[in-house]
Amino acid sequence: MPSAVPARVNLVTLGVADLLRSSQFYEALGWTRKARAWEDNIRFFALGNLVLALFPRQHLADDARVENTPPGFGGFTLAINLPDEAAVDRAYDHALEVGATSLKRPVKAEWGGYSGYVADPDGHAWEFAFNPFMPLDANGLMHLPD
Amino acid sequence: MPSAVPARVNLVTLGVADLLRSSQFYEALGWTRKARAWEDNIRFFALGNLVLALFPRQHLADDARVENTPPGFGGFTLAINLPDEAAVDRAYDHALEVGATSLKRPVKAEWGGYSGYVADPDGHAWEFAFNPFMPLDANGLMHLPD
Repeated sequence: MPSAVPARVNLVTLGVADLLRSSQFYEALGWTRKARAWEDNIRFFALGNLVLALFPRQHLADDARVENTPPGFGGFTLAINLPDEAAVDRAYDHALEVGATSLKRPVKAEWGGYSGYVADPDGHAWEFAFNPFMPLDANGLMHLPD
Repeated sequence: MPSAVPARVNLVTLGVADLLRSSQFYEALGWTRKARAWEDNIRFFALGNLVLALFPRQHLADDARVENTPPGFGGFTLAINLPDEAAVDRAYDHALEVGATSLKRPVKAEWGGYSGYVADPDGHAWEFAFNPFMPLDANGLMHLPD
């Protein structure tokens, strides 16, 4: 029987300090924002395999009924895998061009791949990685070897 | 021309305090963990549309070259959308049965849907939601209306 909790992530919501600033950053990456009536306090981006939402951090904490502690390391990262090292470099360079902050210039990783990190305007960490052990399918999705 | 930063999320990595505890929690949800040689300090779960990784919080901060500030609200949530309100209740109940902490019992949301939140062992917030305006496709993925 399938789990009552399906194994997928439909939506990643990032809490942000300035909705317009963050929205402009992700638009500048070339990502597609969807216009909706409720966009006054939330922004949605249609990514290939899920939806990215931007929502004021306090509103997000309130919605989840958690205390809005001071921002710091959020304890998570989001990774975009790319087909080779050159594509990682291009992604990293493009992100910096549109205003991302460098956390780690792409380097060979001890696990055998190649990886760098940037931060969005709120410090949310995005990794750009090439993982030779986890090839991407035609849709750019990654599949784990058995 | 497509963006040098493709619009997708291949991997969500959650920083955890106790790798075994967190791994057992996600396994108890019914999710599929993949065994690999490097599983001593990382765990991978094959979700339908991406890979979920569990990694010690300090290691994750070190990898991303950020300061490992004290855990608190991470400034993000992950949502699993479900086909109706009853499925949201079942997901919420199942998560609590396997050790999740309730943050918000599912309730009607002001935006017209139905939503609840639970926290994993590290406080990472998962939302279970029914959104009548964003139907799921045959693969359980959500698509934004134009």
